[in-house]
Amino acid sequence: MKKIGVFTSGGDAPGMNAAIRAVVRTCFYNNIEPYGIYEGYKGLIAGEIYLLTSKDVGNVIQRGGTFLKSARCKEFHTKKGRQQAYDNIKKHELDGIVAIGGDGTFTGANIFNREFNIPFVGLPGTIDNDLFGTDYTIGYDTALNTVIEAVDKIRDTANSHNRLFLVEVMGRDAGFIALRSGIAVGAEAILIPETQTYINELVAKLESGTKNHKNSMIVIVAEGDDAGGAYEIAEQVKQKCPNYDARVTVLGHIQRGGSPSALDRVLASRLGNAAVDALLANKTNLMIGVVNNQISYTPFSKAIKHHQKLNTDLLDLAEILSY
Amino acid sequence: MKKIGVFTSGGDAPGMNAAIRAVVRTCFYNNIEPYGIYEGYKGLIAGEIYLLTSKDVGNVIQRGGTFLKSARCKEFHTKKGRQQAYDNIKKHELDGIVAIGGDGTFTGANIFNREFNIPFVGLPGTIDNDLFGTDYTIGYDTALNTVIEAVDKIRDTANSHNRLFLVEVMGRDAGFIALRSGIAVGAEAILIPETQTYINELVAKLESGTKNHKNSMIVIVAEGDDAGGAYEIAEQVKQKCPNYDARVTVLGHIQRGGSPSALDRVLASRLGNAAVDALLANKTNLMIGVVNNQISYTPFSKAIKHHQKLNTDLLDLAEILSY
Amino acid sequence: MKKIGVFTSGGDAPGMNAAIRAVVRTCFYNNIEPYGIYEGYKGLIAGEIYLLTSKDVGNVIQRGGTFLKSARCKEFHTKKGRQQAYDNIKKHELDGIVAIGGDGTFTGANIFNREFNIPFVGLPGTIDNDLFGTDYTIGYDTALNTVIEAVDKIRDTANSHNRLFLVEVMGRDAGFIALRSGIAVGAEAILIPETQTYINELVAKLESGTKNHKNSMIVIVAEGDDAGGAYEIAEQVKQKCPNYDARVTVLGHIQRGGSPSALDRVLASRLGNAAVDALLANKTNLMIGVVNNQISYTPFSKAIKHHQKLNTDLLDLAEILSY
Amino acid sequence: MKKIGVFTSGGDAPGMNAAIRAVVRTCFYNNIEPYGIYEGYKGLIAGEIYLLTSKDVGNVIQRGGTFLKSARCKEFHTKKGRQQAYDNIKKHELDGIVAIGGDGTFTGANIFNREFNIPFVGLPGTIDNDLFGTDYTIGYDTALNTVIEAVDKIRDTANSHNRLFLVEVMGRDAGFIALRSGIAVGAEAILIPETQTYINELVAKLESGTKNHKNSMIVIVAEGDDAGGAYEIAEQVKQKCPNYDARVTVLGHIQRGGSPSALDRVLASRLGNAAVDALLANKTNLMIGVVNNQISYTPFSKAIKHHQKLNTDLLDLAEILSY
Repeated sequence: MKKIGVFTSGGDAPGMNAAIRAVVRTCFYNNIEPYGIYEGYKGLIAGEIYLLTSKDVGNVIQRGGTFLKSARCKEFHTKKGRQQAYDNIKKHELDGIVAIGGDGTFTGANIFNREFNIPFVGLPGTIDNDLFGTDYTIGYDTALNTVIEAVDKIRDTANSHNRLFLVEVMGRDAGFIALRSGIAVGAEAILIPETQTYINELVAKLESGTKNHKNSMIVIVAEGDDAGGAYEIAEQVKQKCPNYDARVTVLGHIQRGGSPSALDRVLASRLGNAAVDALLANKTNLMIGVVNNQISYTPFSKAIKHHQKLNTDLLDLAEILSY
Repeated sequence: MKKIGVFTSGGDAPGMNAAIRAVVRTCFYNNIEPYGIYEGYKGLIAGEIYLLTSKDVGNVIQRGGTFLKSARCKEFHTKKGRQQAYDNIKKHELDGIVAIGGDGTFTGANIFNREFNIPFVGLPGTIDNDLFGTDYTIGYDTALNTVIEAVDKIRDTANSHNRLFLVEVMGRDAGFIALRSGIAVGAEAILIPETQTYINELVAKLESGTKNHKNSMIVIVAEGDDAGGAYEIAEQVKQKCPNYDARVTVLGHIQRGGSPSALDRVLASRLGNAAVDALLANKTNLMIGVVNNQISYTPFSKAIKHHQKLNTDLLDLAEILSY
Repeated sequence: MKKIGVFTSGGDAPGMNAAIRAVVRTCFYNNIEPYGIYEGYKGLIAGEIYLLTSKDVGNVIQRGGTFLKSARCKEFHTKKGRQQAYDNIKKHELDGIVAIGGDGTFTGANIFNREFNIPFVGLPGTIDNDLFGTDYTIGYDTALNTVIEAVDKIRDTANSHNRLFLVEVMGRDAGFIALRSGIAVGAEAILIPETQTYINELVAKLESGTKNHKNSMIVIVAEGDDAGGAYEIAEQVKQKCPNYDARVTVLGHIQRGGSPSALDRVLASRLGNAAVDALLANKTNLMIGVVNNQISYTPFSKAIKHHQKLNTDLLDLAEILSY
Repeated sequence: MKKIGVFTSGGDAPGMNAAIRAVVRTCFYNNIEPYGIYEGYKGLIAGEIYLLTSKDVGNVIQRGGTFLKSARCKEFHTKKGRQQAYDNIKKHELDGIVAIGGDGTFTGANIFNREFNIPFVGLPGTIDNDLFGTDYTIGYDTALNTVIEAVDKIRDTANSHNRLFLVEVMGRDAGFIALRSGIAVGAEAILIPETQTYINELVAKLESGTKNHKNSMIVIVAEGDDAGGAYEIAEQVKQKCPNYDARVTVLGHIQRGGSPSALDRVLASRLGNAAVDALLANKTNLMIGVVNNQISYTPFSKAIKHHQKLNTDLLDLAEILSY
């Protein structure tokens, strides 16, 4: 291995810069030249590939987003696009590639690898934590902390007015952010796609909270909940309890940004380092994660087929603690 | 003066607790008994009035919200309600009252004062900064800092994807939050109720930004802008430029909460102290603010009639700096 | 079990309130009366034991410190003191006790348990993460985040002046905080008690950094490093390189405070819940931790005899990434 | 005016980047070429002078420190050094220069201006707020917020242990940071260079606090207090009250860094803009500040002769509120 390329793809996540930095520094350590590929697969096709220096990764570990940028790329779905990507890889003599992203990123890598046999390793970079093969994805812990800081602020105003707030957090298909942040803010209820939401049950819980003279109530709603987003659910609650002063806040894109947390920086550093080690050891076509504090390897084919399962103990815990 | 009551009313604002604390501590200093009235005018009518101790205001200066709580109160709009409020004031022998809130709070105080001649002073407690007679309202600086922290996070993700973001901030009638936060985040455009919004102009500005290879663009929209909220404006922009990847985030109620900033804590402390001093000096039926770093007094009648004017220099500045 | 007592002891740690809350709420769920014991063993001896209500644990999950307070207690080292503690437990009819703290706390509990056979369970509450039997202690993750936020600020000024900074973090006997925070801030060197510090080696590393035109250099020093604290080490460096503009910052007690991180809140919630469950299941005289994401139980005798071992992979990682 | 140079000098302060950005953007607006001079006077002498582009100031408004860096420069104290600086200014055809810094920066500019008649304007960039001719210096508000966040954390642990903490903040010659942050954290006492510190008085205040069952006590000490730094004062307190559990924290360099606050970003933007306007209007050899919300101009000779006076009302306020 003399040259390794690295890119970020899909939605950005805090800690991606830390992962890129770890890839680059580990390359230097092993006398490998690291190349940055801009905007993911798009840059691979367009040939936006540049040698990275020590300076490029100085002072980036604490920055949110990704300095290599990210973009969607329809052309990579075509054979022609992938051929161009291959040509660029050959032109720049890249011996292996580290792809930081999510499901879609690995699906692309898997197809590409089958067609052109370029050594790829993937790192789980997404705030959603829904990837199979790792306990934590890069960005998840930061997103959780962003959510709880925001909800702590909302709790201030909820308390001052004895109000009910429905706070919508990210999670189109999975309730990871909602569940852990819900426990962490002491939410009165947590609504997630993985479990069926019954409005009657929710209302009963809220009524019981009102009876217990709770100052305020917070319901965390994953955007992909089966009963709808926070606005829809607020409507349904109001229909049953017209006199509720229910407010809605959709946290939105602030969840993707911000300086990465300690956990995410250490995780990203470990994974970026392990990615280069894996390429050097000929472990390829797989995603690298952390399971039980150990580096673990999951073939792309398996990583994209399965989904991380929600810890159902935490669901029970949320129930008990809101009691 | 032997007994002074204090309450918070209207929307809560960070620093209200610091103001209550300053009222209470200044009372102690002057051998006056401070009484907390819960939930604003509602508590005045319901008789929710309790002697406050040193412990009640220990460790609250850094807390968002208001521990005396706040609520809307329709009964105070009726003569009967106000009579009850008066009876409670007499019953508790309150010699003066400090009301912390906004326009509506002072309007109520003004009517009540005319009818029952109870000495009232008002403190400007609102994140909107739209009150006449003070350079800063309690909570405004904290709200600004909350907004810029949120937009800094959004900038991370906007940069990573070269995206346009429309961020809606509070300000139904006034652009104070939008204007200053817009300058502070380096927004490409700031849309406020005080100036007419032309979508063509906005689009031209964005196109010019695109030509200058700006990584990302942020437009700050006051919720009460004449062209609509952020969602409506995003729609109008997309109609003219269908290929824009424009995203919307509505910051919502996080702007009301959070630990108050240094400026808000000092401001609230000064005003709470000045409120008791004013009552002792027989200065009543007025709002106390800070103008040019000096304590200033504005009769309620004047405070509720006029509005704070936007600094138009800042509008020009925003224009120049987004150049 | 009808009544359970809970206390915090030793140095306070962010998340202790979340743990107390979880104990209390889980008690309610199981129809058990929870009693708060103030200031740890001191309150047990003094009889400062009070029934806790839902309100006592409302709105505390986000607060640093411990509302049950903590204190050192020499009397508990005497048989007479422990007898008094026992009498109070009997007087209040406590059927079991949850002790949140560190090594010293568990040592006391272990002796007491042997003497009086009162069911105790311990929860690991310390920012130092040095307890055997758990991957994370309550407060560790928050402390890490506090450190990295502080060092990020120091990096700003270090970069502006091309300076070397030695930052001392907590860790009298262990380098857990130093090691992870050092990786997370991209420190040029990390000095910990577990490994021998050679000043010559450190100087060589710094010189090589200077040659690589690094803008600034950060060295993280655990307070208990074998070569001394940050001030001593700075002196030794300056003796070898008199022209270095080396600055020292000792982060100190800010590391103990602050709103707990998402991880600490969830961890504390899980452990508080598990503590009551353990008492109900007659699992006692042990510390409850989390190992590989699973609740784990370690007898006090073992917990206090062993120490958590530092992950040496992280040491190597730190070395490689500062390359 | 066709070309304007800008540099930062002296200790760095949050908001310096925002000021540079405003200078650069205002130059563009006026068709002027902005040149960045690196490391202050040092770069002026060494000829480290480069044309700045829009990209250089993109995404810097939120960054602490100064991307133009800062350094001490002894050569500028010599005639020879200043001659070299002049030659470089002529070589790069700079028509005017914006110097961002403090007292020392303006003293240098004043001498240089007298000798070589180069148009200079100064902007007040220092966290200390001790400059005559402006209500706020760039960086002061951010430093205050950094201090209060740190002390809020310390208050957590102080409360948990009923402890006394002495917290040392920056201010070698002036108590601005100590006074306002002291009020903002509700300090029990504030010790500053401007007023004489009597240890007996301090001890009396602390004893009275202890009698009033205060949970914890915080004393803010400006580093340049006449009675010594926080460690010295702690010693003196302990000599009089040997049984006090007094702890010391020196906040140190974290006070210089961090993302600038909203106030500092707006202030820096206004001042950077006004600096270019002043040069264009031939107003030179002066410092630009903000007094009573209006841009104000103070000749260097006056700015360096006088010192900003402490608001003594705030001293009284601190006294009353700690009552």
